[in-house]
Amino acid sequence: MAFPEDYSGRVREINEQLMHSFDVIQDKNLKGAMAHYPAAGGKRLRPLLATIASEAVGGKPNSAMPFGIALEMVHNFTLVHDDVMDEDDTRRGIKTVHAAYGIPEAILSGDALFARAFEVALDSKAKDSDLVRLVETLARSVRLLAEGQQMDMDFETAKTVTSDQYMKMIELKTAVLYQAAAQGGAICGGASKAQEDALAEYGRLMGLGFQIWDDVLDLLSDQETFGKPVLNDIRNGKKTLIVIQALEDLKGPERAELLSTLGNEKATKEELVRARDILDEVGAIDHATKVADGLIKQAKEKLSVLKDSNHKTALIAFADFMVKRKT
Amino acid sequence: MAFPEDYSGRVREINEQLMHSFDVIQDKNLKGAMAHYPAAGGKRLRPLLATIASEAVGGKPNSAMPFGIALEMVHNFTLVHDDVMDEDDTRRGIKTVHAAYGIPEAILSGDALFARAFEVALDSKAKDSDLVRLVETLARSVRLLAEGQQMDMDFETAKTVTSDQYMKMIELKTAVLYQAAAQGGAICGGASKAQEDALAEYGRLMGLGFQIWDDVLDLLSDQETFGKPVLNDIRNGKKTLIVIQALEDLKGPERAELLSTLGNEKATKEELVRARDILDEVGAIDHATKVADGLIKQAKEKLSVLKDSNHKTALIAFADFMVKRKT
Repeated sequence: MAFPEDYSGRVREINEQLMHSFDVIQDKNLKGAMAHYPAAGGKRLRPLLATIASEAVGGKPNSAMPFGIALEMVHNFTLVHDDVMDEDDTRRGIKTVHAAYGIPEAILSGDALFARAFEVALDSKAKDSDLVRLVETLARSVRLLAEGQQMDMDFETAKTVTSDQYMKMIELKTAVLYQAAAQGGAICGGASKAQEDALAEYGRLMGLGFQIWDDVLDLLSDQETFGKPVLNDIRNGKKTLIVIQALEDLKGPERAELLSTLGNEKATKEELVRARDILDEVGAIDHATKVADGLIKQAKEKLSVLKDSNHKTALIAFADFMVKRKT
Repeated sequence: MAFPEDYSGRVREINEQLMHSFDVIQDKNLKGAMAHYPAAGGKRLRPLLATIASEAVGGKPNSAMPFGIALEMVHNFTLVHDDVMDEDDTRRGIKTVHAAYGIPEAILSGDALFARAFEVALDSKAKDSDLVRLVETLARSVRLLAEGQQMDMDFETAKTVTSDQYMKMIELKTAVLYQAAAQGGAICGGASKAQEDALAEYGRLMGLGFQIWDDVLDLLSDQETFGKPVLNDIRNGKKTLIVIQALEDLKGPERAELLSTLGNEKATKEELVRARDILDEVGAIDHATKVADGLIKQAKEKLSVLKDSNHKTALIAFADFMVKRKT
C-alpha cells in the first residue's frame, strides 16, 4: 500500500477517536485547552505507525488504535508544555495553548492530556501482560522525552555540542515516540519477540531520520509549504547536525559570518539566507540529508523479519516518507 | 498501633526508596529539580496509607510500597506545577522548584516525576491484572486532580461558590489521592472486593476531612507550628468551606468587613486577624471543624469490614490524625 495516500480513511478514524477521548473531561475550559492542538489536525504519524505495525505482524489495525491515540496525546502534551518553555506564541498558524488559554491552563491541560493518555492506552483490547508492557513503554518514553528536552535546553547554553550529543538528544526527544509506536503496535498485533525488537529498532531509526530531515526542511523549505516559519533554527541558534558539521569544517570568514548570524534574533532575511548558503556550500546540508537517508535505509532493512504483505510495503513507504515529506 | 508515632521507621524506608527512584535520571539538573521537594521531607501520608491498608487486608507492607511511592511522586509533581501556576516562590520554607531552577525546568521535572511514577508503580510485585488496576487508578486520579485544580482556578474568578461546589473541588483536588492510596494499598494486599470498596471510601472521606482541617489550620495555627504562613487563605481570597458558610450567615457590617479583607493582598496583620475573628464569631470555623470530624467518623465506620488487628487500629488512628494534626 502507498503511504500516506492510502490511509486517509484511517486518519479520519484516528481523529474521531482522538477527539472522543476528551468526552470524559467535565470542565469546558480544561477540555478546550486539551483539545486545542488535536483539533487543529496533524499527520497522525504515530498512531498510523502503531496501527500499520500491528497489521504487519498479523494483527488488526484497531488493536493498536488506543495505544496509537495515547501516543498522539503524549505527543500533543509535550508540544503544549514545550511551547510554554520556549515562550512560543504560535504553532503552525494557530495560537499556542498558553497564548490562547494562559500559562496555568496550558500546564494543567498538558498534565491532563498525559494522564488521559494512560487511560486510553489501557482501553486496548489486549491481555493484561501486554497492557502492562504498553503502559511501561508509554511511561518510559515520556521519562526519556523529558531527558531529551533537558538536553535540548542544555544545548542552548553549551559552548560546543558534538554530533554524538546531538544524535543522543534527538533519539530521546523524537525517536523514542516512533520507537514506542512501532513496538507498541507490534505488541498489540501479537508479534514474536524478534518482530517486536526489529520493529522497535525500525521505529527508532526512522524517528532519527525524521528529525534530521526536519532540520533540513527548516533550511530548504518555504514557509507556505513547511507550515511554520523557515530558517528559524538559524535565528534561534539551534545546534542541529547541520550546524555542528559546518562548524567543524568551516574556517576563516565564512565561519565568523555563520557564527554572527546563528542565534541572532535580529538577523535580517538576507543574513539568514546567507547563513543557509554557507551551510549549503560547505556541504553540511548535503551531509545531513545523506545521514537521514542512511538511517531510513537501515530502518527498512529491519523489516526483513516480516513476511511480505501490503502492510510491510506500507511500512517501507512510511520510512521513505519520513525523508521525502515537504511539511 | 499508634499513628504516626509507630511508623517512623517506615517513613525512613519510604524516603530511601523515594530518593532511589531518581537514580535512573541521567541529567543532573533534571534529577535535582525532580528531587527538590521529595528531598525536603514530608509526612508521607499517602505511602503510609497505602502500606497500612495493604497490611490491614492481610498483605505485606512492602507489597504496596512502590504504589505508595508512585502516589508520593504524583503528589510532588502536582505541587511543582501548582506552584508555577500560583507563582509561589516558597513552599514550607524552601524555594519552589521554579524559583530555584526556572519555570521550564519546573514544568519539565514535574512531567518527568509523573512519568517516573508510573514506572515505579509498575515495579509492584503484583499479578498483571492488579498492575493494570493500579495504573488505571493512578491515571484516573491525575485526570481528576486536574479537574479539581481547574475548579480551584475557576473559583478565583467565580462570584459565588456553594458548599457543594467546594466539596466537589476538594474531593477532586485532595481526596482522590487518599482514595487511590487506600484502594491501591488494598489491591496490593489482596483485598476482597468489599474490603477494597470500603477502603477506597475510607480514603476518600478522610481526604475530605484532611482538606477541611487544613483550611481550619490556616486560620488557627501559627506559622512556626504550621510550617507555612497562616491566614494566607484570607489574603488570597480562597473560597473555603469556612468562608462560604460565613458569607451565607453574615449580614451587615461584619459581612462588609470580611469581604473587604478577603483577597486583599495588602491586608494588614490586624485586618487578617479581624477577618479570622469574624469567621470565628459567626461559627464558621466551628462548623467546618464539625464537618471534618463527621467525615472522619464516617471514614472510620467504613473500616467495619476489616478484622480487628493492629493495622486496623492504625487506620483508625490515621483517620483521627487527619483532623488532630497541627501541621
